[in-house]
Amino acid sequence: MDAPEPLKPTSLPVAAGGWTALRNPSRSGIWRHRPALGLPVDIPEISLGEGDTPIVPLQRWGTAHGIPRVVAKLEYVSPTGSFKDRGAAAVIAVLAGAGVTSVVEDSSGNAGAAMAAYAARAGLRAQIFVPESAPMAKRDQIAGYGAEVVAIAGTREDVATAAEHAAHAPDVAYASHARHPAFVEGTKTFGLEVAAALAGSPPLHIVLPVGNGGLLLGAYKAYRELDRAGFQVRLPRLHAAQAAACAPLAAAFAAGADAPLPVQARPTVAGGVAVGRPARGGEVLAALRRSGGVVVEIDDEQARRTRADLSRVEGLDVEYTSAVAFAAAEQLRATGVIGADDRVLIAATGSGLKDAGV
Amino acid sequence: MDAPEPLKPTSLPVAAGGWTALRNPSRSGIWRHRPALGLPVDIPEISLGEGDTPIVPLQRWGTAHGIPRVVAKLEYVSPTGSFKDRGAAAVIAVLAGAGVTSVVEDSSGNAGAAMAAYAARAGLRAQIFVPESAPMAKRDQIAGYGAEVVAIAGTREDVATAAEHAAHAPDVAYASHARHPAFVEGTKTFGLEVAAALAGSPPLHIVLPVGNGGLLLGAYKAYRELDRAGFQVRLPRLHAAQAAACAPLAAAFAAGADAPLPVQARPTVAGGVAVGRPARGGEVLAALRRSGGVVVEIDDEQARRTRADLSRVEGLDVEYTSAVAFAAAEQLRATGVIGADDRVLIAATGSGLKDAGV
Repeated sequence: MDAPEPLKPTSLPVAAGGWTALRNPSRSGIWRHRPALGLPVDIPEISLGEGDTPIVPLQRWGTAHGIPRVVAKLEYVSPTGSFKDRGAAAVIAVLAGAGVTSVVEDSSGNAGAAMAAYAARAGLRAQIFVPESAPMAKRDQIAGYGAEVVAIAGTREDVATAAEHAAHAPDVAYASHARHPAFVEGTKTFGLEVAAALAGSPPLHIVLPVGNGGLLLGAYKAYRELDRAGFQVRLPRLHAAQAAACAPLAAAFAAGADAPLPVQARPTVAGGVAVGRPARGGEVLAALRRSGGVVVEIDDEQARRTRADLSRVEGLDVEYTSAVAFAAAEQLRATGVIGADDRVLIAATGSGLKDAGV
Repeated sequence: MDAPEPLKPTSLPVAAGGWTALRNPSRSGIWRHRPALGLPVDIPEISLGEGDTPIVPLQRWGTAHGIPRVVAKLEYVSPTGSFKDRGAAAVIAVLAGAGVTSVVEDSSGNAGAAMAAYAARAGLRAQIFVPESAPMAKRDQIAGYGAEVVAIAGTREDVATAAEHAAHAPDVAYASHARHPAFVEGTKTFGLEVAAALAGSPPLHIVLPVGNGGLLLGAYKAYRELDRAGFQVRLPRLHAAQAAACAPLAAAFAAGADAPLPVQARPTVAGGVAVGRPARGGEVLAALRRSGGVVVEIDDEQARRTRADLSRVEGLDVEYTSAVAFAAAEQLRATGVIGADDRVLIAATGSGLKDAGV
């Protein structure tokens, strides 16, 4: 990689044993990658079998869009239907190991459901703060895991502030998917799996939907650490797909700024990437630039069309938030950022079953 | 196994290479088990990454019900959210390999969605016949894959008859999850995975929801063939869970009959097992008896309570149809069929996301 920087402490071992040193197939979920996770050693391995998601070629869809060598990693084939399970497993394990008995999170979407499920799995109480506007179906999914759903009036930031405040009570912790550092240790397993599974035909580009950027940061960290540990890997160009209705990273990227720019968010079907003020936006921008990636904005009409195409042409039922990444790949090909022979991997982050009725 | 019988032809190789001879990790989905599948050798390997589902211990739920050594195999962590993906992949691959251009299926539930998705994946047209009473959400999921949804008035059998009739057109085939023999070749991979993953601590009991019995027949076939091929496996006791509202196999089992008995079906939340006349019911009954299994009837109240418990206590979001298997395990323990120290595996066959609003 061409822009080395001081690396944060990590438990990733030197590459003596090769890839196999990083995997322990007798463990479940992200804990198969236990030796590579920068987490305390004495925590319980909370798992619902997350991770190890399929990677499938999309020949028909790819050929139609001039990207014949495209594959999708189906993160929606996960215990609660999204990649958030990887991060939630890690965060809840760390908190359970620290003796916390109750966790607080703010999200009405995939992260809220994932954190509620893993809290239940660990026997922890959970309070999930959601905007008053959150649809009843999403609240019900969270409440189904026994979590208390707390509706807050005001902006998305007001919801986060309320959650943070609630976490100040004794034995309670803020299990924030946007802020807790263990979340990215969990999503790092996405990158480790891609690097290992596609070692013989590595992707030149990875396109991901980006709201807070938890998956992109995990992928970036995986490749950085593999490189530092002596593995022969090439960091793919990490491209971020945002919804045009709420694209603070696109605005910052275009302006050459180091931090997300304020935006006036509009409603969008791609709720999972509609994050107006991503907590780690500066890190996301840095990772994008260091990898040679760009940011693409996708409007709702493109997201709808792409989602329908993927279902009809390939049998993939992704949520709109994931469809923006596929639409972004299409656009990157059209603008020449992705070449006709390039290998491309797209993260299908969440299940279309969650968008029924949207 | 104690009741040997003539085995149908199978491609399962003799055990020379041990378990590894049965797996090819470089393939995707059920095709990892290609050497063990009794399917034509020249068919395309249609896959959406089905199979290889997680097996997770349920210590808290199990302890509460006196079955501390219980694990669940999370079949809902699948491309379209149910175990039906295993069978659909196999059926569609066989039909695509035979040059069919269009398939017909009858199911408004998991099988309809799975068959529509895999048909899309293979580039085949699909017509899915559903009862007029099928909920719009389920029709929409099927139509999302580009399949034509055909609503039929009358009984469930009238729907099947209409589908069968439509399949008489040229280049069209009846991709019936209940009847096509390749379906069970696909679900056989469930049993192969259990036998391999739990070789060191094999389950004495496997409890499954049973409507047509496609998963139970697959599990049975896997163990029979492993045994015949020289592997040291012990056939677990296969127990069938049915909805009390529609339990033709329970009635037949209790009566000592060799075929399902006619029942007056009532409505139930466990729609996936509400099959009044299972096409291969006789085979299911034989497999149950040969394995030492029994049939359990579960009412809707038990299914609701069990589903809620699993979510709250373990973070598993299963559909009602799957909850009946967990409730059945509880009942089998209470009646002493399952002992306190017995190892038990329960198939969590479908995602709770599909039951939103039921």
